[in-house]
Amino acid sequence: MSNKPLILITNDDGITAPGIKALVEAVKDLGEIVIVAPDSPQSGMGHAITITKPLRLDKTNLYDGIESYQCSGTPADCVKLAVDKVLHRKPDLLLSGINHGSNSSINVIYSGTMSAAVEATIEGIPSAGFSLCNYAYNADFSLAIIVAKLIAKNILSGGLPEGVLLNVNVPKIETANIKGIKICRQAQAKWEEEFDERSDPNGRKYYWLTGKFVNYDKGNDTDEWALANGFVSVVPVQFDLTAHHAMAHINNWNLNF
Amino acid sequence: MSNKPLILITNDDGITAPGIKALVEAVKDLGEIVIVAPDSPQSGMGHAITITKPLRLDKTNLYDGIESYQCSGTPADCVKLAVDKVLHRKPDLLLSGINHGSNSSINVIYSGTMSAAVEATIEGIPSAGFSLCNYAYNADFSLAIIVAKLIAKNILSGGLPEGVLLNVNVPKIETANIKGIKICRQAQAKWEEEFDERSDPNGRKYYWLTGKFVNYDKGNDTDEWALANGFVSVVPVQFDLTAHHAMAHINNWNLNF
Repeated sequence: MSNKPLILITNDDGITAPGIKALVEAVKDLGEIVIVAPDSPQSGMGHAITITKPLRLDKTNLYDGIESYQCSGTPADCVKLAVDKVLHRKPDLLLSGINHGSNSSINVIYSGTMSAAVEATIEGIPSAGFSLCNYAYNADFSLAIIVAKLIAKNILSGGLPEGVLLNVNVPKIETANIKGIKICRQAQAKWEEEFDERSDPNGRKYYWLTGKFVNYDKGNDTDEWALANGFVSVVPVQFDLTAHHAMAHINNWNLNF
Repeated sequence: MSNKPLILITNDDGITAPGIKALVEAVKDLGEIVIVAPDSPQSGMGHAITITKPLRLDKTNLYDGIESYQCSGTPADCVKLAVDKVLHRKPDLLLSGINHGSNSSINVIYSGTMSAAVEATIEGIPSAGFSLCNYAYNADFSLAIIVAKLIAKNILSGGLPEGVLLNVNVPKIETANIKGIKICRQAQAKWEEEFDERSDPNGRKYYWLTGKFVNYDKGNDTDEWALANGFVSVVPVQFDLTAHHAMAHINNWNLNF
């Protein structure tokens, strides 16, 4: 058994995506790597888990010298299956990504990449999700690779508070132009949906989700601000969703039967 | 145009589930109801949205005198489509459920029911998700109906703080034995997964997700405590996942390139 840190790697773009290869490249010298990733793209899956059908899990030879598996489920399923059926010890670190496209601000809610990291944190595994703000398949991951290695080293040596993971987003700029890494809060932003209405060959309507991202948060301590100003954004994320500040308001209600 | 409050109703068990019928029954006197719900069960979908295929949306006549639509997407898709394509004004309230089964503590993360309510909150619509701690198809929703009406009335008259929704869970007990409604925090609990490994007729392995729910939170201010002690639990929920308390820890790291 290896004494090196055990690093579990997953993503939501699927096991063949350039982004996950970049992540493996980034951290392969930091420990023993095991990959358990979706066998097909799972973007926008949020924290979906598969409960009404069974899952497949197959060993691959896609990564030279690295144990890797593809799974028919969601990113959260991959983490659950890895922990229960693949790994022989608890991993020291779960890294998810590198996502092709931003998971900043409200995107954390919809992101399969981030949900894998949330799932690992629920399991007590220190975790981070990485995203590059570039949707291109052949995006340049060189800056994101440097960032992922730096963050992974810090988590391995410094740990993370219980129940907290990191949402790391890397702007689409040249490595030479990056200003640094900023610890931020999640910006208040949202997607303004506009469904594109079309007709199929039988004349029946169908709808494609499209939308415009709107940031209505003027703060300079947010992830959106950091990314727009040449910084990598790091948001500490928690899965305790309790809105403690709202309790007083609701306690004033008349809730007697 | 009606002056009555506009109430959008959805769920994750699908438009024909007894739970959504119970929710309609609970609030039909409080306003004008429009139903946009999944055409099939969507349990465990978390905050999944449909981005790689188009959606269908069809009017139904399942509810006498109430406008209702079934959608091929997830609960979050239903809310997005309702807002963009179905409703002619912003709803005053979104109610999701009544779910067949608990969405207390960590289940809020996996729940399609709750994600619909989160999505509506992102859209600026006051929202609540309701769940009955009884998975039976023919469960007795009579107590949950009383609770849903009471909570809906309070939201309509008292509002909710911006960015906050309610996660309401009703225990599986007789109405006569209910002790009241408790405002709670999300308990620290998790599912300990055990995948059931089987072989298909071709000898290929597959895995079913099973698990045991473990509550390791001893507090008497949690939703799990409330439900176990005869109370309805109400947890105020937020979609800003920033773990502010963790910032100091990470700010101590060496994050220089």
